Amino acid sequence: MSEILKRLADVIESRKPANGGDIDKSYVARLFSKGDDAILKKIGEEATETVMAAKDARAGGDAAKLVYECADLWFHSMILLSQFGLSADDVLRELARREGLSGIEEKASRESGKPD
Amino acid sequence: MSEILKRLADVIESRKPANGGDIDKSYVARLFSKGDDAILKKIGEEATETVMAAKDARAGGDAAKLVYECADLWFHSMILLSQFGLSADDVLRELARREGLSGIEEKASRESGKPD
Amino acid sequence: MSEILKRLADVIESRKPANGGDIDKSYVARLFSKGDDAILKKIGEEATETVMAAKDARAGGDAAKLVYECADLWFHSMILLSQFGLSADDVLRELARREGLSGIEEKASRESGKPD
Amino acid sequence: MSEILKRLADVIESRKPANGGDIDKSYVARLFSKGDDAILKKIGEEATETVMAAKDARAGGDAAKLVYECADLWFHSMILLSQFGLSADDVLRELARREGLSGIEEKASRESGKPD
Repeated sequence: MSEILKRLADVIESRKPANGGDIDKSYVARLFSKGDDAILKKIGEEATETVMAAKDARAGGDAAKLVYECADLWFHSMILLSQFGLSADDVLRELARREGLSGIEEKASRESGKPD
Repeated sequence: MSEILKRLADVIESRKPANGGDIDKSYVARLFSKGDDAILKKIGEEATETVMAAKDARAGGDAAKLVYECADLWFHSMILLSQFGLSADDVLRELARREGLSGIEEKASRESGKPD
Repeated sequence: MSEILKRLADVIESRKPANGGDIDKSYVARLFSKGDDAILKKIGEEATETVMAAKDARAGGDAAKLVYECADLWFHSMILLSQFGLSADDVLRELARREGLSGIEEKASRESGKPD
Repeated sequence: MSEILKRLADVIESRKPANGGDIDKSYVARLFSKGDDAILKKIGEEATETVMAAKDARAGGDAAKLVYECADLWFHSMILLSQFGLSADDVLRELARREGLSGIEEKASRESGKPD
């Protein structure tokens, strides 16, 4: 896994109430303490903000805002995964599996003579 | 950047119409050919499916579904980033910047004597 | 309930498989036949399209698009309500209850001497 | 338009800053004062909460929660419409237009002999 995703996953894990996360000091600890629904609401909210930032960027706004919102979306995805005992590593493995499959599919379709 | 994210980003770039992406063979090429709104709709859709998969997992369903939907969400985020000339690398840099800031903040608050 | 919401609710009810809805002729019947998740995906999708239409309208696009997407969002909400044995009438009653409460709250706060 | 939607639309209009809406007393006035993006975030958030409430209802939860979240979604849609100089009346007219068209379509398809 990417070094930064690994470090972030470690920070997120350490913010769980069971791991001593301090809700007075940490946003992530507070989110964990609120439970599933609070985290899921953030997924919907950050996805909406990503869509808004893309629309703004296309209308002449700052593309950095899109990066920022996408980072928020991934960050909250990682909190969600952690809440369910999963991690970004599981997501990367799933992406790797697909990328492998896609390579196979494409090879197969090329071999069958389908024009490129 | 993580090796798999790098490989995926390369595949996504190669699917752009300008890079010879073939809409008859590639889902990503078709999505690029439809433009911003088609990609943004997928962000909303995949975020919703992630929320649904989490609810299902909590109700006794398969946690692998949550990994799958989260992978879909990240994958379509990468297509969106590519559509705007950006990449997962930009997102990881933004996440690294925040993790660094957070480290500094926490150190500062520890030094100020605030109980851990 | 508004006459049109009532007529729409009747049409939606008639499209349920149990009421003879024909999946070859009716979009709503097909959606019912696919079940909860297909309907819920549409809620997320139509909400995203509403957000996109608002952004487009602000950037100089057609405001009619926003009305259109909002109609889609309400229409699919009505299908969702029907799927759970509920209706737009329940939603209107809940809105009426709040409007009544809000009147009371505002009266109370005025009487307490808080400046208008 | 339904009496309650008409009353709610009037209340919403009266909460606009230009109409004297008081941000200290009214949630709607505060939302208007924050502008487009704050309202659009609410659309994404309420859609997500509607999806979550439906999942909870199916898992044995209270169906009233689904009505409540759907009412929130419609209410914030009405604020969004108002922000763009539109109203629920426009949405109902669009729904009426479709219902009329659908009637025509169905009649046409029946007349063409397609089995019911």
